[in-house]
Amino acid sequence: MAAVRNLDALDDVIHQKVRLAVMSCLMASGEVDFNSLKHALGVSDGNLSTHLTVLEEHGYVDVRKEFVGKKPRTTYTPTPLGRKAFESYITVLEALVKTG
Amino acid sequence: MAAVRNLDALDDVIHQKVRLAVMSCLMASGEVDFNSLKHALGVSDGNLSTHLTVLEEHGYVDVRKEFVGKKPRTTYTPTPLGRKAFESYITVLEALVKTG
Repeated sequence: MAAVRNLDALDDVIHQKVRLAVMSCLMASGEVDFNSLKHALGVSDGNLSTHLTVLEEHGYVDVRKEFVGKKPRTTYTPTPLGRKAFESYITVLEALVKTG
Repeated sequence: MAAVRNLDALDDVIHQKVRLAVMSCLMASGEVDFNSLKHALGVSDGNLSTHLTVLEEHGYVDVRKEFVGKKPRTTYTPTPLGRKAFESYITVLEALVKTG
């Protein structure tokens, strides 16, 4: 059986379910607003906010706040660092689940 | 953006890193003994034991204890339920990370 060399390399920031779903959405769509993410993931405001803050603090997402008419809108985009981290995560994950 | 319908469907029992690595090894090898798993994953006895117990309690792995000469050996195999859960996890994960 081959050694699983990369268990530590599986980025904990991205591996958490909600954050993985957020990053997947952002990678696919380029930018997504808070309400769309909330709707897509079916999570609470608080839960989503918590995980978006973690992603922001690690420099994986950029946040833009603006008003659309009188309504505030917060939009998230993946940073180059976030894109690289996501792609690396997928590579490590694929190698892990194929471990022989 | 498509809804991420299956966030809850991503099995928490398997999603945890060490358990994911264990299940990946078992799926690939059919059966693996404790020391080989420990060596492959680079985790402590206690950490590995904890996660193997969770997998056993969920019916995902079978445990066989025997002596090889004077040395005890504990071997783990994936159950049919564990195999099905792993395959389902991979399917849900693949759909999630391709979310558009």
